[in-house]
Amino acid sequence: MEELSAFTGRAQDPSSLRSSGFKKTSFFVETIFAAKMAQTNPQPAQPGSWKVTVYDQENFQGKRMEFTTSCPSVTEFKFDNVLSLKVESGAWLGYEHTGYCGQQYILERGEYPRWEAWSGSNAYHVDRLMSFRPINSANHKESKITVFEKENFMGHQWEVQDDYPSLQAMGWGNSEVGAMKVSSGAWVCYQYPGYRGYQYILEADHHGGDYKHWREWGSHAQTPQVQSIRRIQQ
Amino acid sequence: MEELSAFTGRAQDPSSLRSSGFKKTSFFVETIFAAKMAQTNPQPAQPGSWKVTVYDQENFQGKRMEFTTSCPSVTEFKFDNVLSLKVESGAWLGYEHTGYCGQQYILERGEYPRWEAWSGSNAYHVDRLMSFRPINSANHKESKITVFEKENFMGHQWEVQDDYPSLQAMGWGNSEVGAMKVSSGAWVCYQYPGYRGYQYILEADHHGGDYKHWREWGSHAQTPQVQSIRRIQQ
Repeated sequence: MEELSAFTGRAQDPSSLRSSGFKKTSFFVETIFAAKMAQTNPQPAQPGSWKVTVYDQENFQGKRMEFTTSCPSVTEFKFDNVLSLKVESGAWLGYEHTGYCGQQYILERGEYPRWEAWSGSNAYHVDRLMSFRPINSANHKESKITVFEKENFMGHQWEVQDDYPSLQAMGWGNSEVGAMKVSSGAWVCYQYPGYRGYQYILEADHHGGDYKHWREWGSHAQTPQVQSIRRIQQ
Repeated sequence: MEELSAFTGRAQDPSSLRSSGFKKTSFFVETIFAAKMAQTNPQPAQPGSWKVTVYDQENFQGKRMEFTTSCPSVTEFKFDNVLSLKVESGAWLGYEHTGYCGQQYILERGEYPRWEAWSGSNAYHVDRLMSFRPINSANHKESKITVFEKENFMGHQWEVQDDYPSLQAMGWGNSEVGAMKVSSGAWVCYQYPGYRGYQYILEADHHGGDYKHWREWGSHAQTPQVQSIRRIQQ
């Protein structure tokens, strides 16, 4: 089990993992105030601030393992698949296949009891999540992306710094985007309005933030259709 | 066909419905600037600013009809179902069943070629959209909702005015919400992080904005689980 330490994944005693429910802390209000302040003045993510717990059965059952850094293949940890997970800190990017390939799934803090909690495309039924990694550049309050009408950063462009459940409602001319350039932060772009359909995670620290053609959005990209876009919450 | 005029739904010549693609307007950049200004200083929605075109086949095929106001049952217009739709203006709320019952689907401006573009719960496979209505109170820039830890507006509370793909990342203590009070605007709350799973549309002008128990979030509500929340874009 050398892989365990190599990827900082470690098996864990169930009793040591506790939910942060109301009854277990008397600092709930203070926590919220702190979070609101942190949101106004975001702190850069610290190394080691990521934690995800994955399970090989739905509803947080079965074998489980905790990760604090990238996992290129859950099979290295004797998992056939991941069927539920809890993100305890940081923003993560899950992939359909090993080696960070296939459909992409944004994973922010919270509980994902079944595959449909993270998968966006029902047409192409996917219940596999075989690799995942932290999204280092996620910065909810200092994010900027420019969307272009045509590939290679041509045609009309629009600098975006906020979440848009409908690009067209904000004046974008059609349901497609030709290219995108991420200046800061990390973004999720979606095929359909309202953050639905295929997901594409675009990051300032990958490809130098340049995604000059829709095929570069991910190995699963099959269409230039993008109708909603939002910042990733760290 | 008296119902047609009663609900302002009208059949339409296909050639009169044009997409607003880049090639069809030379005012694209101006449109975006206007939209950004409109976003900064939002205008109240005007009567008649809603338009949705529904189709009885996927990919905008088959019989179609255009609506500018509520439709309590598509069967009144000889539709068995709605399998694709385009929201051309305004924000709409679609329902699984006739009479505004069952699962709720937020429908903002854009193209929805198949049911999975609007449905959030794959576990409970739903490909029906039998009634829909405008969301009158949607106001993206002046929205406020208070979430409460316990039902009847008890326990810890948090006033929210922005979009949150993960409530827990912002300091909320667990994956559930006991009650919600909408002061202004309209909101979508989701079962899972990242705007996934069951959707609940909560409006300032329904129930006086008070949703004191999770069963009041909708006829489909089966759980107090709420992990992400966002304003609705008009």
